Amino acid sequence: MRSCGDLKVYVYDTTLRDGAQAEGISLTVQDKLKITEKLDELGIPYIEGGWPGSNPKDMDYFHKVRQLSLKRARVCAFGSTRKAGVHVAEDANIRALLEAETPVVTIFGKSWDLHVYSALQTSLEENLKMIRESIIYLKQKKKEVIYDAEHFFDGFKSNPKYALETLKVAAEAGADWIVLCDTNGGTLPHEIEEIIGQVLRAVNRPLGIHAHNDGELAVANTIAAVRCGVRQVQGTINGFGERCGNANLCSVIPNLQLKLGYQCLEEDRLSHLTEVSHYIGEIANIAVPGNQPFVGHSAFAHKGGVHVSAILKNTRTYEHIEPELVGNKRRVLVSELAGSSNLYYKARELGLNLEQDKPKAKEIIAKIKELEYQGYQFEGADASFELLLKRAFGQYREFFTLESLKILVEKRPNDGDVINSEAMIKIRVGDQVIHTAAEGNGPVNALDNALRKALEDFYPELKEMHLVDYKVRVLDGKDGTGAKVRVLIESADSSGSWSTVGVSENIIEASWQALTDSMNYALLKRRQQP
Amino acid sequence: MRSCGDLKVYVYDTTLRDGAQAEGISLTVQDKLKITEKLDELGIPYIEGGWPGSNPKDMDYFHKVRQLSLKRARVCAFGSTRKAGVHVAEDANIRALLEAETPVVTIFGKSWDLHVYSALQTSLEENLKMIRESIIYLKQKKKEVIYDAEHFFDGFKSNPKYALETLKVAAEAGADWIVLCDTNGGTLPHEIEEIIGQVLRAVNRPLGIHAHNDGELAVANTIAAVRCGVRQVQGTINGFGERCGNANLCSVIPNLQLKLGYQCLEEDRLSHLTEVSHYIGEIANIAVPGNQPFVGHSAFAHKGGVHVSAILKNTRTYEHIEPELVGNKRRVLVSELAGSSNLYYKARELGLNLEQDKPKAKEIIAKIKELEYQGYQFEGADASFELLLKRAFGQYREFFTLESLKILVEKRPNDGDVINSEAMIKIRVGDQVIHTAAEGNGPVNALDNALRKALEDFYPELKEMHLVDYKVRVLDGKDGTGAKVRVLIESADSSGSWSTVGVSENIIEASWQALTDSMNYALLKRRQQP
Repeated sequence: MRSCGDLKVYVYDTTLRDGAQAEGISLTVQDKLKITEKLDELGIPYIEGGWPGSNPKDMDYFHKVRQLSLKRARVCAFGSTRKAGVHVAEDANIRALLEAETPVVTIFGKSWDLHVYSALQTSLEENLKMIRESIIYLKQKKKEVIYDAEHFFDGFKSNPKYALETLKVAAEAGADWIVLCDTNGGTLPHEIEEIIGQVLRAVNRPLGIHAHNDGELAVANTIAAVRCGVRQVQGTINGFGERCGNANLCSVIPNLQLKLGYQCLEEDRLSHLTEVSHYIGEIANIAVPGNQPFVGHSAFAHKGGVHVSAILKNTRTYEHIEPELVGNKRRVLVSELAGSSNLYYKARELGLNLEQDKPKAKEIIAKIKELEYQGYQFEGADASFELLLKRAFGQYREFFTLESLKILVEKRPNDGDVINSEAMIKIRVGDQVIHTAAEGNGPVNALDNALRKALEDFYPELKEMHLVDYKVRVLDGKDGTGAKVRVLIESADSSGSWSTVGVSENIIEASWQALTDSMNYALLKRRQQP
Repeated sequence: MRSCGDLKVYVYDTTLRDGAQAEGISLTVQDKLKITEKLDELGIPYIEGGWPGSNPKDMDYFHKVRQLSLKRARVCAFGSTRKAGVHVAEDANIRALLEAETPVVTIFGKSWDLHVYSALQTSLEENLKMIRESIIYLKQKKKEVIYDAEHFFDGFKSNPKYALETLKVAAEAGADWIVLCDTNGGTLPHEIEEIIGQVLRAVNRPLGIHAHNDGELAVANTIAAVRCGVRQVQGTINGFGERCGNANLCSVIPNLQLKLGYQCLEEDRLSHLTEVSHYIGEIANIAVPGNQPFVGHSAFAHKGGVHVSAILKNTRTYEHIEPELVGNKRRVLVSELAGSSNLYYKARELGLNLEQDKPKAKEIIAKIKELEYQGYQFEGADASFELLLKRAFGQYREFFTLESLKILVEKRPNDGDVINSEAMIKIRVGDQVIHTAAEGNGPVNALDNALRKALEDFYPELKEMHLVDYKVRVLDGKDGTGAKVRVLIESADSSGSWSTVGVSENIIEASWQALTDSMNYALLKRRQQP
């Protein structure tokens, strides 16, 4: 157990376990490892990785997470106390927890008599034994043990004496933390305060809070608990979780740190919160809602009129915090204004002097607006944006031009269900024409392979670049399979990574745009760095 | 003024004014009239219709809303106190408020000295006069006057004496309600309680609360205020509003009414809340998030196996309220996290008796886990899941089988940058083979068109179904264009909608799976309903 300084609050992230219970979220092992690394970078001290007893994917994660070199996070395996009537050393779930080989084990037990009777179908006395023996056993195995008192608040309302008894048993058995869970998410902040007041008189152990958002009160309940003296806050990034989600760490952390002076993250880390929120939203494929507090795209966006003119005089007039503190940005939705200043900023970075050429600037802004209207998005496609600027300034020549391309996909269920994807491509480099073909895992992969094959004789440096991410977003589902798609490609070589975009009703065309932008950018970049 | 019974709380809806400030919301006059009628049906006593001085659309609304025969709602026109240095009877904004001809006028004034200096650029004394004279004038015109003390909590923190002085002036001038606004949304619940405690000692007038959600605390702040004695709650449906939105009435109302015993709506009206939330979301073209408390599609959806088995025994175990009380529904999801209970529940819904066939159940669970490991996701694909179950039970025969398919995409930049997408398909229906071809916007659309063309002679009912959404998710970007993709397709006909899934490294193959599942399901559904 770490020591509990008075204003130090330990953040316990359960995005990978409770968060993954959200409808529509399904994380691969790779996704989970990426999220773990990101949370570690943010400085989260406890990361709950999964429930090793519940499925093979979670166990696979625990094997692989050991190979990451995490800076400060301790990975936690989650599971239940032993089953009723089973010896703790032989309990399959407890064994799986140990096999996960994590420094921390979090086990949940029942505090609510209704659950003991109705869900576990055992006696109140046996439930206490299950809690006691499971914790003692895990402590013998040298684990840091976090005890999650499931349904604690509902249990307390039903039978306060028994609910407190379960906590006392956990404390006596040596649990390092006792976490009070509002599992059904229906408790109100004043109830949290009253009940924690009574817990503090009965149990002398570091406490945690685990709130759900069924009453839209998870953040408030978490803050109320911390103000009572609780020092571990459990939650998820963006509030992901079953039903209405868990306490949203992206709101809990800045409220505690910026408004109440608690220390959750190191000073310089808080400004990464917006980036982490969006990164994890992207992996979970659940876009961060624009109006999400602190980290949403609209969280500091001001529409025209009274607000904007006041903001221009003094930002405090309509902003509760400085957006930069959480890594977000102020936006003034007077697009003409915001547009040109962003553009000037970007152009200056590239050494282009746009301020001196107002008609050119106007023309470029009009072009960007038109493209964004069509569905292009340059925020996530820096390389495509740079190519667009350089083309407008005539500072760029095409490294190759397309004469024609053909893609053939064939599926023959009767011949062993073979699926072939082939691309034929004819391109021109200078005065030479190359006509070649290649196969791939799918049509876009075949296209990628054919284009490389055609270009590599001329531009051998392309061998060093590779695609690291390929994303497809359907822009408007309403036309079914005829809808527009946006393709984002992230590429990298030894010197860095870059992103490009393509938009079309045809996924091949959208992919082609992003793919060729990526290769052109790679070639351009080399030539700028002699 | 209506009398203020002890547990009666008056709901003041500002969806049409503050809600419409949200980024992405733009309501026509017709939209606003429809929303007004819906809110009246729900039994909302105060509906803020707009700011008549700010734009012609809002004035048009006020003319037309008089022709609606509202049952109980009183429509409110919103505006500011008179301008500094202008006679109240000649103030353009005040005149517009009177022209709106509403029974209620809501005017906002400044409580925060910073705003008086910085935004209004006038003196503290003149600001008090502006408040006093505006209210007296409107009372002379026989209006019910609601005074919104803008930025009250920030103002109180900056200069408590002056902030209270503005309220006293409003009270003496005869305001029927004094509403304390947390305009920047950054106040914490315990601050709300402390500050309202002081207001109660200084001002003897019915109070209201107007909270914004920038700290994700608007609902908690509203409830805290009501517990202090405030009897008017201002907010918006679904929490729509500028930046992070306003207090969400869809959470405020059920919390106050079901948990704290306050009376906001008549008993039989609360069960319309979910419908009203979705109706207004539809009009605003902002879908209600699945995880939205009380009214979201996932608010009572259970995924974890432990949860589902407990829910089947007693719904209170994992539900904070009965979903029917707010007009929502319980749902059980199928996923790898769930054990056999979810599957049994789902199977029972389909009339399949899985409990009696344990080996079959085990086999199906293993199959689902394997498919989910590969990247399939059935919780968003109910129709694919139903087909899977029925195939396992032999209760399904294929309506067609594929012999072969070929897709050709061609791009010729020199011939006017034509992009062609064609699909050739050979399928078997019974003992007949159909060989046909079609074009489309892209390869998947071409495939869709070709498949329909081939099948419609045999199954003319397919003409009635159409695809409403097509989603692509790249499962793991690390392999670039060779990564696996998951395709989700949502389809609909006149009797409802259904979703299907496909997974492959090849987007054509993944789309084919989802597309054929969708058509097979449409055909199966018809045959079950003779």
